[in-house]
This record gives sequence, structure tokens and C-alpha cells, in this order.
Amino acid sequence: MARDHGGNIDWAMATYGGGDWIDLSTGINRRPWPVSGISDAAWRSLPTHAAMQRLIGVAAACYRCDPSRLLAVNGASAAIQMIPRLFPPGRAAVLTPTYNEHAASLRHAGWPVSEVSGIDQMEGFDLAVLVNPNNPDGREWQAETLATLATTVGHLVVDESFADPRPDLSLIPSLPRNALVLRSFGKFWGLAGLRLGFVIAQPDLLARLAEAAGPWAVNGPALDIATAAMADREWAEDAIGYHCEASLRLDRFAMKAGWQVVGGTHLFRLYDVSDAQAAQTALARHHIWTRRFPYSKSWMRMGVPGNRQEWDRIAHAFKAVFPTATDSMART
Amino acid sequence: MARDHGGNIDWAMATYGGGDWIDLSTGINRRPWPVSGISDAAWRSLPTHAAMQRLIGVAAACYRCDPSRLLAVNGASAAIQMIPRLFPPGRAAVLTPTYNEHAASLRHAGWPVSEVSGIDQMEGFDLAVLVNPNNPDGREWQAETLATLATTVGHLVVDESFADPRPDLSLIPSLPRNALVLRSFGKFWGLAGLRLGFVIAQPDLLARLAEAAGPWAVNGPALDIATAAMADREWAEDAIGYHCEASLRLDRFAMKAGWQVVGGTHLFRLYDVSDAQAAQTALARHHIWTRRFPYSKSWMRMGVPGNRQEWDRIAHAFKAVFPTATDSMART
Repeated sequence: MARDHGGNIDWAMATYGGGDWIDLSTGINRRPWPVSGISDAAWRSLPTHAAMQRLIGVAAACYRCDPSRLLAVNGASAAIQMIPRLFPPGRAAVLTPTYNEHAASLRHAGWPVSEVSGIDQMEGFDLAVLVNPNNPDGREWQAETLATLATTVGHLVVDESFADPRPDLSLIPSLPRNALVLRSFGKFWGLAGLRLGFVIAQPDLLARLAEAAGPWAVNGPALDIATAAMADREWAEDAIGYHCEASLRLDRFAMKAGWQVVGGTHLFRLYDVSDAQAAQTALARHHIWTRRFPYSKSWMRMGVPGNRQEWDRIAHAFKAVFPTATDSMART
Repeated sequence: MARDHGGNIDWAMATYGGGDWIDLSTGINRRPWPVSGISDAAWRSLPTHAAMQRLIGVAAACYRCDPSRLLAVNGASAAIQMIPRLFPPGRAAVLTPTYNEHAASLRHAGWPVSEVSGIDQMEGFDLAVLVNPNNPDGREWQAETLATLATTVGHLVVDESFADPRPDLSLIPSLPRNALVLRSFGKFWGLAGLRLGFVIAQPDLLARLAEAAGPWAVNGPALDIATAAMADREWAEDAIGYHCEASLRLDRFAMKAGWQVVGGTHLFRLYDVSDAQAAQTALARHHIWTRRFPYSKSWMRMGVPGNRQEWDRIAHAFKAVFPTATDSMART
């Protein structure tokens, strides 16, 4: 729990004062799929096999795979904790910098971990782990490239937590036998409090993960909500369109502020801001919370604002903090 | 997932027809704590450290322990999966018959498991596991007896999933250093779909469990709902009073039907019905679902009905199936 994560908005409030914050420290969509009534049964009863099968059917269509290749888990985080325990510890390579739970979980399970900077350095490892597109820098790899990588390693784990707007990158439709793909529900659908993720892999690997997860690993409301949300393709298309435009717009603010765009995904952007601590503090005084990284003094990551009011506050803050960010940026 | 559990109401519906079932196949309170509005933030945001600390504070008061001894997990089931992996496999003893996930999870993690019938057979084992009060037969052990048992084994796991109405039995206030106590939120508060449980143990053991669980193992709505529910002592006292009366009442139906009361807890009752398959089928035709066990041809377990309408249907069904069960049982 002591590891560095986004989502620490309560720390920001304790430090800079409570009130109405815009939390851009995560990559969670700030325009969530609209949750409406939850059935009494979803709260009261143990989640049923039938409810799980309905979700798996919808998710399989969404991810373009056979339902037998899909396991729902208690957030992608749960999969990250379980996968290192599927195999006897060997040599693992994690493409870094990336989401820090991958290496931490492997090490906790007894794996020596090599942090590598390119996939050409992963050949021969027992387990190779990368995030596609990568968090925080947005590096991306084509599915064919990763399929080739899979032939050179024992097992390949591809965390596609931010791939929903980029189905062209997904390894799922051409899944190698020794690959495990992770998907997150909470980020793209904006419902991270729900705790839901998926593993896509061969049935024998999924059966071992299911055994480790135990019965009823996914809560009842999550099953019902995600079944409806993942079938709502119109909402998904609108969300992708919004975030495409919004990412570009946030980059324009950043560039006006004199920052360099390092990369990112539809849901977050990574900037080289020279002095990340100073930039984070300056925006925090306007109750806008961002993400820094222990391994970089200059990188700052920002999630994408979700509505007109948030954009107005971003514009106001940038204008106050970086007076060269002009009024023209405030248009919606 | 293939193991035998209650809560398989969808199977009953597929077999005996859909419609309005009374599911007494589990030990989940059918008078749930009343969930009202869930905050948007609970769905949208990663659960915060502050929200978790609020829940831990309320739960610690409820269970009468120091907050540093308490870890919230994704259902007691999650703890049952993780605990065998806390220690190198040794010799485990499970007091049986009991909830079957304990032995199954230990075996999956590589432990040879001895199924013993009394705690006097547990001495010298590396890990001793029992459920207090026990599921399904309601056997119970005093805290002092278990504290003595703890001095004779490597580690002692006490699953107190059904102990909420019996704080006098709890090992928590006098927790031995080598004990891990499990508590379930969903059963007594009637919200099993939420997925929440607790482990009470020394901080070093909890830290290792927290590491295995990963960040955000408990969903946001569960944190908020349980914080309110566990602080509602008036509701808890009423629930205990209701289930005390209701257990006795269900036993009277059973005895009129010619069944033997084997035991049980406030939330479920275990009967020797001679032919469990016949009794289950007969009640299923009235859309009342009960629990049988693969290891017994004569035992049947029933949860406690939750309201007047359910009691009326139970009375009607018993009268039809067992004509000696008289009308007088139908009074509320």
C-alpha cells in the first residue's frame, strides 16, 4: 500500500485544503458511464453464475474474443497480484518506466525483475510484462510486434488497461497461446470504484487464475453495471471522440505553458514541465491535482478534464500560473 | 468454481422453473441493512485511504479490537484464498464438516490437509482452521478454549463469519499472536453482493496479506455502505432479536415435519431430514430453495425467512408437503 499511486486526492486535500478539487492525478475517465438504479438482488445476494455469464458474453463481444478466453476479476490490480503466483518464479522483464505494481508484485512473489527500456531486450525471459499503450508515456506496440515477441519469451503479459480507444493495438483478437492480456473496466468507463477487470488468456491459465481468485471475486453491482455499460457502444464511441479532442486540447494548454508533450493516451497526457514539483504545487493551489513520478523530476501526468466547468477552471488556473497561456484556450 | 456452494439459485430456477423464489440455500440475512443513495464518487473514484480508514475505525469498534489489527478484504472468501499462501506449506488440520473452501484453498496452495472432527486432534499442526460457530452444524467453542488451542499449533485460523450475533464466542478481544480471525460483512448485514470481509491479526501478518491483496481490493460502494451499516448498532440489535426468534420458529416447523434439529446459528438451521434430496425437491416445487451437502444424504440446511410473506409461504409449503405441520405454525 505504501507504493506511489495516483488517486491520492485525500492527501492533496490534507495538504492544500479541502473543497472542490479536479482530480487529474489518475487516468480515469471523468465522464463516467451513467449508473442508474442497482437491483436489490445485486446488493443482497451472492453474485450468480448466470449474472457472470451475461457479463462475460458482453465483454467478449466488446474485446472480440471467445467467452472461454475471458475471466472477470476484482480490478486489473487483482490480476497483477495473481499472475506472478501462477508460475514458479523465473526471470522477469518489465518494460519501464510503467505502472509500478507490475514489478512490485513480481518481486513480492519472488521473481527477480529486470527493468528494460525496449522490447528488443526481453528475448529469453521467462515472463515479459508491458503496458500497451504504456502508462505514463503512451508508447505503443502493434499486435504483430507483440505476437513476435511472444515467440521469444516464456509467457507474455500485456496490460491493455488504456487500450479501449485503440482496438487496433489489442493483442486479443490474435492471442498467442502463452499470452495473458489484462483489461480494466474502471478507467475507460469512468467507474474505478466498482473494481472490475478482465484477463484474456487460454482456458487452462484462466482456470488457475479463477482458482486463486476464489468464488465471487467480482461484486454484484459491478456485474450488472458493466453488463449494461459494455453493451452501450454508442456511449463508447462518443467517449472516444470526446477524449480524442480533449487530449489535443489539453496538449495545447501544456504547450502554451512552455511544456513539452512527452506522450500519453486518450485518458491522460504526459508532459515534461522542467520542474514537476513546482508545476504540481502551482496547480494544486487552484485545487487541480496532477501526478508526479518518483523517478522523474520533470515529468507530470494529467488526466483529461470532463466538462465545461472543469475546462474553465483549467483555463483560469493556467492563465494565473502561466500568463502566456492565453484566453483563447478557454473556448469549449 | 466447480465446488459445491449455496447461492446456486439460478440452477434451481433452471431446474424447477423461474419466478418468485425464497432462497434459503445460504446463510445470508434476508432482512438486509437498508442501502440508500451511493455517492457518485464511490462509483467513479479509486477508493481513498481516508474512506478505508473510516471503515476500519467503525469495524474496530464493532469487533472490539485495535484498528491496527484489522484489514478489510474483498469478502471473507478472498482471505480464505490468501491465507494458505502466507506461509510455506506445512501440515494443516481443518475441523470438518465445515465450509468447504478452507480445505480446498489450502490444498490448492500445496498444503496436505487432515480433516479432523475435534479440536483435540489439532495439536502440533502447522495450521489449524475452524469455523466458530461452525457452518453447517453450529458447533461452537469458547474463546478461552481456542486461545489454549492456539498455544499448541503453528497458526490458528478462526472463521467467525457467523459470529456477529454471538460476540461472547469471539477470539478477537483476546487475540493470540499466532491467530487470524475472519469476519464476513455480507452475511449478517444481508449484503453479500457487496463483497466485504475482514481479517483480524497481528500487524505483521496483515501487512503481508495487504501486499497479496494489492491496492483497492475493496470497492468504493462497499466502503461507504459498510461504514454506515456497522455503526448502526440499533439495527444490529434488532437483527439479532429477530433471528433469535426466527431460528426457534423455523425449528418448530422442522420438528412438526418430523425432522431432527442438528444445530445451526442465528442465520441458518441444520436439520436431519432422513432423505435430503426428497425434502429439497419437495420444497423446491414450492419455490423454496434449501441446501444439501455432498457428504450427507440426510442433512439439509435452511436459512431463516425474512418477512411475513415468506413465513406464510413456508407455512403453506410445509402444510402441503408435511401435512402434520399444522396451521398453528403460520402465525407471525
